[in-house]
Amino acid sequence: MDLNSDLGEGFGQWQLGDDDALLEVVTSANVACGFHAGDGSIMRRVCERAVLTGVAIGAQVSYRDLAGFGRRFIDMDPAELTDDVLYQLGALDAFARVAGSRVRYVKPHGALYNAIVAHEEQAAAVVRAVVEYDRALPVLGLPGSAWLRRAEEAGLTVVREAFADRAYTPEGTLVPRRQAGAVLHDADEIARRCLAMATGQPVTDVEGSPLRLTPDSICVHGDTPGAVAIARKVQAALTEAGLELAPFAP
Amino acid sequence: MDLNSDLGEGFGQWQLGDDDALLEVVTSANVACGFHAGDGSIMRRVCERAVLTGVAIGAQVSYRDLAGFGRRFIDMDPAELTDDVLYQLGALDAFARVAGSRVRYVKPHGALYNAIVAHEEQAAAVVRAVVEYDRALPVLGLPGSAWLRRAEEAGLTVVREAFADRAYTPEGTLVPRRQAGAVLHDADEIARRCLAMATGQPVTDVEGSPLRLTPDSICVHGDTPGAVAIARKVQAALTEAGLELAPFAP
Amino acid sequence: MDLNSDLGEGFGQWQLGDDDALLEVVTSANVACGFHAGDGSIMRRVCERAVLTGVAIGAQVSYRDLAGFGRRFIDMDPAELTDDVLYQLGALDAFARVAGSRVRYVKPHGALYNAIVAHEEQAAAVVRAVVEYDRALPVLGLPGSAWLRRAEEAGLTVVREAFADRAYTPEGTLVPRRQAGAVLHDADEIARRCLAMATGQPVTDVEGSPLRLTPDSICVHGDTPGAVAIARKVQAALTEAGLELAPFAP
Amino acid sequence: MDLNSDLGEGFGQWQLGDDDALLEVVTSANVACGFHAGDGSIMRRVCERAVLTGVAIGAQVSYRDLAGFGRRFIDMDPAELTDDVLYQLGALDAFARVAGSRVRYVKPHGALYNAIVAHEEQAAAVVRAVVEYDRALPVLGLPGSAWLRRAEEAGLTVVREAFADRAYTPEGTLVPRRQAGAVLHDADEIARRCLAMATGQPVTDVEGSPLRLTPDSICVHGDTPGAVAIARKVQAALTEAGLELAPFAP
Repeated sequence: MDLNSDLGEGFGQWQLGDDDALLEVVTSANVACGFHAGDGSIMRRVCERAVLTGVAIGAQVSYRDLAGFGRRFIDMDPAELTDDVLYQLGALDAFARVAGSRVRYVKPHGALYNAIVAHEEQAAAVVRAVVEYDRALPVLGLPGSAWLRRAEEAGLTVVREAFADRAYTPEGTLVPRRQAGAVLHDADEIARRCLAMATGQPVTDVEGSPLRLTPDSICVHGDTPGAVAIARKVQAALTEAGLELAPFAP
Repeated sequence: MDLNSDLGEGFGQWQLGDDDALLEVVTSANVACGFHAGDGSIMRRVCERAVLTGVAIGAQVSYRDLAGFGRRFIDMDPAELTDDVLYQLGALDAFARVAGSRVRYVKPHGALYNAIVAHEEQAAAVVRAVVEYDRALPVLGLPGSAWLRRAEEAGLTVVREAFADRAYTPEGTLVPRRQAGAVLHDADEIARRCLAMATGQPVTDVEGSPLRLTPDSICVHGDTPGAVAIARKVQAALTEAGLELAPFAP
Repeated sequence: MDLNSDLGEGFGQWQLGDDDALLEVVTSANVACGFHAGDGSIMRRVCERAVLTGVAIGAQVSYRDLAGFGRRFIDMDPAELTDDVLYQLGALDAFARVAGSRVRYVKPHGALYNAIVAHEEQAAAVVRAVVEYDRALPVLGLPGSAWLRRAEEAGLTVVREAFADRAYTPEGTLVPRRQAGAVLHDADEIARRCLAMATGQPVTDVEGSPLRLTPDSICVHGDTPGAVAIARKVQAALTEAGLELAPFAP
Repeated sequence: MDLNSDLGEGFGQWQLGDDDALLEVVTSANVACGFHAGDGSIMRRVCERAVLTGVAIGAQVSYRDLAGFGRRFIDMDPAELTDDVLYQLGALDAFARVAGSRVRYVKPHGALYNAIVAHEEQAAAVVRAVVEYDRALPVLGLPGSAWLRRAEEAGLTVVREAFADRAYTPEGTLVPRRQAGAVLHDADEIARRCLAMATGQPVTDVEGSPLRLTPDSICVHGDTPGAVAIARKVQAALTEAGLELAPFAP
């Protein structure tokens, strides 16, 4: 099983999350590429440490929106979106190479992640960037999204993720954040759910019924209070059950 | 002989210079990488057309300063400068690769170009970025600069340029722009001087004495009035004299 | 009658349109405030010249999007939009004051202009910024828009504009740009239509029927080929008909 | 006596320091204006709370450098610097007015603060911006700096500050940060020194001799570990000694 998390989301003087701690827990690092967060020095540091800890480097590509942290949908031209994604891919790959590795996968960030669940043109635009850059790069995303469907159609390797701390509807979609109970906070419960997901057992959906999720990777968050502690609980639960944690991307 | 020029120096809605015309004239394109000018869509277009016209793609790296067009010295930490250069190198290389080529050389832009004539720490920082990214990349710059000296010491291939439209002192340095006569405007005179430079003949320095410049590449400008016409005159003068124009970088 | 146009839409080294020429034609200048275009030095220069030519200074507020020139809808939090508008209003007012005037009105730019035709929350957010900054500031916009309706409800003075070079539907709305015939190019026809609008006569809608538009201001463009020539024709047609051109804002 | 501190130095999603806590301690808030930190929503919030707590709002103007947090000298054109300062002044004033107050003084930030200790052209450029915007605005800075000297010559009110946690040379200048002992960390010692400064008593310079500093304001930091605790100690020491803490700007 793979654990992924967002890293390198500071900018200049500003920091966010505890990258060093998370790099001891996760197996895949979604590294910010400078458009919603991240700068060269942060990208270098995360890449160097990811290589040291055996964590796979993924490109967490975003809309160009530092002020909004990439969390605002931008109705941009798909061709320009392709180019913005390529720009970010190349920039991060420079640091991954210098650190002795390569960008191993692509996971869109924030509003772009959400948009391409259903926005066909933008989904296609991001897929096109990956196809142009390197057809061997897997893409990480939400099961059922236009992003993964189009990536698969384009011949890319798709990796499906589930969220450690999010409630699911009976249909297997995420309960929207604005609804009560959308985000789980109890570390033990989260760890139990992740272990179930990782072993093919059902979890409980928001209505109390069993729901089987079979993700290829589980996303743990790094920027909320207690995030690292929760991530460590998840890691411990999986390894104590005898599961091997390893990047999905070799 | 090689002719180089700055290209791709628009941003978003804004344009600067006539890239398409210059790509029919020069053999090496110093492509802006997004820090003083340039965005993904501009970089893609310039790279694609450069490949079509057989022009070598160089990374015109800069301080991060869109508002100042990279023309203002920034007293930045050398380690951060290395990282900013790497970021730009990787970003441009993505577009060069997608276009079927690669970044073939590195030429700093504007205030960074001027700073590393003498600023040892910043010169070393840019050299370090090239060494880390790809030791096979030649670097283009001013003869006698700390930039070229340190690049040579680091084992990089150095390419020395002269400026088509600039007056030189008897010592072979550029007459500062603020002095009268620093910039030449007569296209025929500029073309004659370039031909002399390219064939090992002396040009006339600012005091009227002969001065022998033996550049590996001649820089023609693209963003001044009549720039393209002057560049075409230079191209014609060299080719009519039987010189072959070709990129210094294979 | 008032003629308004977008001005100050360069950034740093980049220029767009011919501000000086337009300031001899229009009576109201929609000055970019730094979020889609414009910087301090451009804003100073436009404000100084607007005062000299008796042109009213308006704040052309925008989403924060230099790379997209403010032409991309951003699904941002309304409270943050209010704050972004206030920031721009204050910044431009500094230059208007130093030039001996004040910001006299507010006209949103590009995608924000288009969004608040129908987007109630964003329309309310921009209205709120104007109310907070100065209830005496008129707002300029599209008749029938949420923007003008909510401004009026909030007690602001609303100024309705028509577009000199755009075709209209029988309902009096703009023919979308992607449709053939949406933009008029014939200077004489444009001038005739503007004269009709200014004197209460009908123009011809896109289907050939008469349509009466009664704008308080006519918008002429400054950034397209021949824009200044068209603007001058409009100005000449109105003044030769004996109409006085003057800013709607005192 | 006045206590000043830097506030509002987050950006978008990123935070820095504890603004709310500091607004209970200081009497003057140097509010970031968006060029090194700060955005509209942060500026609004700080201004609103400053008004509630009776803290004077000052414009902490900076070079345009979010990536470098304004801590890198930029060798920019003085006329453009004047315009950048005016832009920031106007932007912050919008939020100060909406909150029911006004910008009450100007204090440059970071590298600009340091540059205009000796850089005459840039010092003059910032002074010019204040003179143009409002001659009644006091300026806050380092005693002996070109900034305060030129401000005084221009007829502005100058306010001299000392630093609570910095060591001084026998000449009364700051011990450079790179030297050992440049920054004091003991809260009790810092509080004692501030009380001495505020009551006309000498402090001990870096060589152990008495040095009399007679600042109009004392700067306490907000972004270092324990900063708020130190600031509270200073506040307590001064008030317990019967000194009244109040903004220098009415």
